[in-house]
Amino acid sequence: MMVGDMDTNAFGVAILAAGKGTRLKSKRPKVLHEIGGQSLLRHVIAAAKSVAAPQEIFCIIGHEAEKVRAAVADTGVRFVLQTEQRGTGHAMQVVKEEFARLAAAGEKLPEHLMVLSGDVPLIRPTTLEALASFHRGEDAAMTILTAEPHDPFGYGRVIRKGGPGSSYAREGREAPSAPGIVEAIVEQRDLKPEQRSVREINSGIYCFRTSALFNYLDRLSTNNANGEYYLTDVAGLMVAEGLRVVALKAESVDEVLGANTIAEMMHLDAAMRRAIAGKLMAQGVTIFRPDTCVIDSEVEIGADTVIEPFVQILGLTKIGPDCRVRSYSVIKDSVIGAGTLIRNGVLMEDAIIGEAALIGPYAHIRPGSDIGEAAHIGNFVETKKMQLGRGSKANHLSYLGDAVIGSGVNIGAGAITCNYDGVHKHTTTIGDGVFIGSDSTLVAPMTVGDGAYVAAGSCITDDVPAGALALGRSRQVTKEGWATAKKAERDAGKVSADPAADAIKGKV
Amino acid sequence: MMVGDMDTNAFGVAILAAGKGTRLKSKRPKVLHEIGGQSLLRHVIAAAKSVAAPQEIFCIIGHEAEKVRAAVADTGVRFVLQTEQRGTGHAMQVVKEEFARLAAAGEKLPEHLMVLSGDVPLIRPTTLEALASFHRGEDAAMTILTAEPHDPFGYGRVIRKGGPGSSYAREGREAPSAPGIVEAIVEQRDLKPEQRSVREINSGIYCFRTSALFNYLDRLSTNNANGEYYLTDVAGLMVAEGLRVVALKAESVDEVLGANTIAEMMHLDAAMRRAIAGKLMAQGVTIFRPDTCVIDSEVEIGADTVIEPFVQILGLTKIGPDCRVRSYSVIKDSVIGAGTLIRNGVLMEDAIIGEAALIGPYAHIRPGSDIGEAAHIGNFVETKKMQLGRGSKANHLSYLGDAVIGSGVNIGAGAITCNYDGVHKHTTTIGDGVFIGSDSTLVAPMTVGDGAYVAAGSCITDDVPAGALALGRSRQVTKEGWATAKKAERDAGKVSADPAADAIKGKV
Amino acid sequence: MMVGDMDTNAFGVAILAAGKGTRLKSKRPKVLHEIGGQSLLRHVIAAAKSVAAPQEIFCIIGHEAEKVRAAVADTGVRFVLQTEQRGTGHAMQVVKEEFARLAAAGEKLPEHLMVLSGDVPLIRPTTLEALASFHRGEDAAMTILTAEPHDPFGYGRVIRKGGPGSSYAREGREAPSAPGIVEAIVEQRDLKPEQRSVREINSGIYCFRTSALFNYLDRLSTNNANGEYYLTDVAGLMVAEGLRVVALKAESVDEVLGANTIAEMMHLDAAMRRAIAGKLMAQGVTIFRPDTCVIDSEVEIGADTVIEPFVQILGLTKIGPDCRVRSYSVIKDSVIGAGTLIRNGVLMEDAIIGEAALIGPYAHIRPGSDIGEAAHIGNFVETKKMQLGRGSKANHLSYLGDAVIGSGVNIGAGAITCNYDGVHKHTTTIGDGVFIGSDSTLVAPMTVGDGAYVAAGSCITDDVPAGALALGRSRQVTKEGWATAKKAERDAGKVSADPAADAIKGKV
Repeated sequence: MMVGDMDTNAFGVAILAAGKGTRLKSKRPKVLHEIGGQSLLRHVIAAAKSVAAPQEIFCIIGHEAEKVRAAVADTGVRFVLQTEQRGTGHAMQVVKEEFARLAAAGEKLPEHLMVLSGDVPLIRPTTLEALASFHRGEDAAMTILTAEPHDPFGYGRVIRKGGPGSSYAREGREAPSAPGIVEAIVEQRDLKPEQRSVREINSGIYCFRTSALFNYLDRLSTNNANGEYYLTDVAGLMVAEGLRVVALKAESVDEVLGANTIAEMMHLDAAMRRAIAGKLMAQGVTIFRPDTCVIDSEVEIGADTVIEPFVQILGLTKIGPDCRVRSYSVIKDSVIGAGTLIRNGVLMEDAIIGEAALIGPYAHIRPGSDIGEAAHIGNFVETKKMQLGRGSKANHLSYLGDAVIGSGVNIGAGAITCNYDGVHKHTTTIGDGVFIGSDSTLVAPMTVGDGAYVAAGSCITDDVPAGALALGRSRQVTKEGWATAKKAERDAGKVSADPAADAIKGKV
Repeated sequence: MMVGDMDTNAFGVAILAAGKGTRLKSKRPKVLHEIGGQSLLRHVIAAAKSVAAPQEIFCIIGHEAEKVRAAVADTGVRFVLQTEQRGTGHAMQVVKEEFARLAAAGEKLPEHLMVLSGDVPLIRPTTLEALASFHRGEDAAMTILTAEPHDPFGYGRVIRKGGPGSSYAREGREAPSAPGIVEAIVEQRDLKPEQRSVREINSGIYCFRTSALFNYLDRLSTNNANGEYYLTDVAGLMVAEGLRVVALKAESVDEVLGANTIAEMMHLDAAMRRAIAGKLMAQGVTIFRPDTCVIDSEVEIGADTVIEPFVQILGLTKIGPDCRVRSYSVIKDSVIGAGTLIRNGVLMEDAIIGEAALIGPYAHIRPGSDIGEAAHIGNFVETKKMQLGRGSKANHLSYLGDAVIGSGVNIGAGAITCNYDGVHKHTTTIGDGVFIGSDSTLVAPMTVGDGAYVAAGSCITDDVPAGALALGRSRQVTKEGWATAKKAERDAGKVSADPAADAIKGKV
Repeated sequence: MMVGDMDTNAFGVAILAAGKGTRLKSKRPKVLHEIGGQSLLRHVIAAAKSVAAPQEIFCIIGHEAEKVRAAVADTGVRFVLQTEQRGTGHAMQVVKEEFARLAAAGEKLPEHLMVLSGDVPLIRPTTLEALASFHRGEDAAMTILTAEPHDPFGYGRVIRKGGPGSSYAREGREAPSAPGIVEAIVEQRDLKPEQRSVREINSGIYCFRTSALFNYLDRLSTNNANGEYYLTDVAGLMVAEGLRVVALKAESVDEVLGANTIAEMMHLDAAMRRAIAGKLMAQGVTIFRPDTCVIDSEVEIGADTVIEPFVQILGLTKIGPDCRVRSYSVIKDSVIGAGTLIRNGVLMEDAIIGEAALIGPYAHIRPGSDIGEAAHIGNFVETKKMQLGRGSKANHLSYLGDAVIGSGVNIGAGAITCNYDGVHKHTTTIGDGVFIGSDSTLVAPMTVGDGAYVAAGSCITDDVPAGALALGRSRQVTKEGWATAKKAERDAGKVSADPAADAIKGKV
């Protein structure tokens, strides 16, 4: 045995993530395609963490190895490079070599090794925990996770000793007492007639006693249609020599499904979204048309909150109880207080919204927006890096960027903070109880003091002291009869254009 | 008999609405959860009105009784308070006591009583009418509405005399001539093997001869797993004493489905929406992707109108023929004339839109908007309490609130009515044929007379007489070479910032 | 034979498009109803072009003939008017008369005639090519396209010689060697018991040897329930006289489905959309929730582009690789370069977008917009007939119409081109490297030279030379203590209104 000190009872996980996924017709490596808002590989790593600490997760990368490494480097997994991709057995040979290096460096290695596929993203932590526990309890050399799909055609079938299709059954001999023991994994093309009805399939997810696995890896051959080393063949070798190979059936078929085409991936995506919506509804969240909502797995939503159709709630968003999120809104990485109403078509990212606020419709709440309790943001309003105090309102057609706004403030329709001078961004500061008239332009940096007023239509370039009134506009001039006269000229053929042409130019 | 004068042939309805709905995990009482745009209870009350006048509908409330009462008080139903919830039989005992009080007060009571569940919202008026009529025709003491689901597991099964699973069938005796007669209602756990294949289930909806029902209520016991009085048990007591208990099968299973979880409610919601879309399509309305549209049951839409995917049409909206409603629009409680185009993302509530108008995209048409024939409201425009005359246009980035606008008016891009002074709302009045230049600010209260012009970029604070031109802006000042010089200074290191910083401040 | 010179081996196509479609409850003729973004008839004509040059496609029109003619006149098909609609056989009699006229005028006529239904829109070119080729190879008088639906009830069944339900089978005689030969088409009501299990149905799509068809048309009778001439009956007449009638089964049932109700049409629409999404996913396009996306059949999308849920991509749009189109966007007849991000809710028509651009959210990109590489268009921005140079940005609340804008330009929030004077549209020209301050109003016609600045809040009516700074606004005036004093007056009861009322009027 070349493997060094074993960490008794410890579980390592090896994730197969080196493949290309040719059928996807994509430049992106297969395991970096996304479902449910995250890459396939990230889903698998998250599940793997339930059975192994991060530093005991080995991710086998090959095709576009650097892209894959960069994409999940933050998860703390270790990477093992499989330069050539010569099959799943070959991948484990590469792991064996890595383990030898680690042992030589004095590291203790895990007694057990779980093998996961980087493209089987729905696998649940509870299933992996059950698999690890079963594997330990059975004291097996190899434990196969199986599933029982409605239509098993095309999959390798797991024949259990004494079970249907087994040699015991065929020969009429009595089966051994432990029916969990596996006799063989038989590929579709090799199925005997009496085995064709076996519906239990090999999921490609296994646990091994590390030392047993490594013993058999060298005996694998490439004597098959694809000329690859198949990890599956280890089962036959072990059974032939009397090692204990057992199988555990997963509760659901979905969780062991992989995806070879984009269409299949989209099926997994839908299945994952359906499960998330189901879980939230069971917690008291009302989700109308749950099949049209897109909710990420780490989202938290309080009871009695209502989610309307066609809504997306993404990332690490937390929504309080008694809220309502109206249709066509997309909320990402934001925190929303209790009782808040998000109207239709609100786009929000990295924002904090207080309780009992009203947002939207068609508000664009960009990163760094912090909107207070009972505050209102109305239609066609954009906010960015902006604080809005309790009960303040900006209800129409505004851009509020790089602004600190107090409580009880009214921002009129069309008011704009001019925060950008082409090079730098500057801050607008507005005190409590301020009234900003409609269509005002506030040229930052500048401050409006508490209780001050800005007249409608003003361009404000200097600070406004507390309690002051600021104006920055011209007095109205009215030319009586001008339009009537101009129209008369036009009608008499004296001028060709409409008087409005002159009017909007103001050349009168 | 404690019941007083009977109103012969009259039908009362008792709606069971006292339950909590624990599995919903919700603070809201179960019957106030909404599907198809209305609470479950409101759907049931609407159906009940087809068999009984409002004042003969008794709504039995208990859990959160005051909330339930407040939510449906406008329907004219009577409320009966069931302080403790001790089962459906107990609910009817409470009704019996209420009837005794009413009789004592000299009220005539209905000869028949229909019992509905407040959480079975898809029940159709036609089914209830058929049930009442069948009950009367059969002269029965009790009539059970049944249904035949594909999978009856878990439901109480209705065994008909001589039918499958009946004692006649079991004993080989000849069945009586009327196979509608019920022998028993048998709960799942009590089914005999030969009864397990019976698919006819008890819907929990019944008609009773009121006097017969009240006779047997006192004999109900709480000798069961939940310690509750079950109304179902009345059937057995009546059959045992030779009273006539009959059953009528509902045409569809959907309409007797209740919902114990939010996920189940969402199924009912989808079923209701599907039925509504189907009905409209049969009337000549084209609804693309009907499974993505959300249309309330009282909405009316004319033939040859096209509804695109992801549209919501709610409340009492009426849309004329030959219209088109584009995707992501939500229309509520509005009236839309023939041939009008609602573009993408229009949100509309309590509005009136004339014929051949163009609205949107992304227009927010708020309550009190009255938009004339062939008028246009364009993108990022908000209207509220606003009249817009025939053929007038406001096509871009405007806020028009508290405004009365004539016909043939052109409202330029970015024009805003300043209707709010922080305390009161004021009205802007604009005559026929007016031209409002872009980016104008109209400070209300104020009037622009017929045929007047407002120059672009003006802030208008005073009335503009008919035929006049009004301006409220500064003459342009141009500093030639300023930017070039400033950039040269910057490039020479004399100033650190970009010249734009000065430019936008205008400090030059 | 009245038919003149035959164009040997040539195929003509006759499309039945004269019917009303009574069950649609629509004023619009049935074949002009749309699925998959085009009328039923246009889909059929497109498929027909795979077997016949346009000038050999004969479209038989009747109900609302002029509307139908106008709707597809651009396809180059010929129209044959069937004034009265007396059945499919009658339609072919009308074609025969037309052919006689054409022959008299010296035209060569096609040796074979394919008959299609104008309301069977999913028929695929490959199927029609296979049908034509099979018909020629079999040297048949008539070839019937058949299909095998799961539930054939209601359809005419095709009985093959020697096949199930045939007379050979019934009489125990040996079938002829060619089992493709048809014995009869039997309508549902005429099926013999042993024929009821036959699932092969007549699709209503046929090929005929033109001369053979025309020979039998006169023998059709109206001796049936509807009093119509049925083309189907030709099969029986030909078989009876020993002509060769054969059948070819279509691969999929969907493609021979017609639609008699709007609900059925919507099913065809969904099936067509599903097929389009499937084809694109197979080419490496990721389409999340493909069942919610609406993509027209001629759209092209590059590999590794991601389409989010609820997106519509219509008309002749071409999207490059590595793009992302976010939810609720609608892209029509536009060209989008590689690596561009279309954010949520973008509406685009007849536009060109460069590579690596950022568009939206909630941008309305109208016809004639040409947006350069790496340019940005942000939220609540409308563009129309507008060029925007490389790297230029217009990020907030702008209207840019009839504008030519250079590269490296920054358009501030709320800036508006005033392009309309009530009669004419005028152009705004902006050079490279220009900075337009927020809330500026640019009154066209006008030009801003390269590198010039426009101060925020300006109304600009005259040309701005290159390198200049232009301002068009008033200096700010600040009245210190004004608001405080006014509030004190109000609080002392001296004035009733809020000081804001005066402030926004600016009357101070």
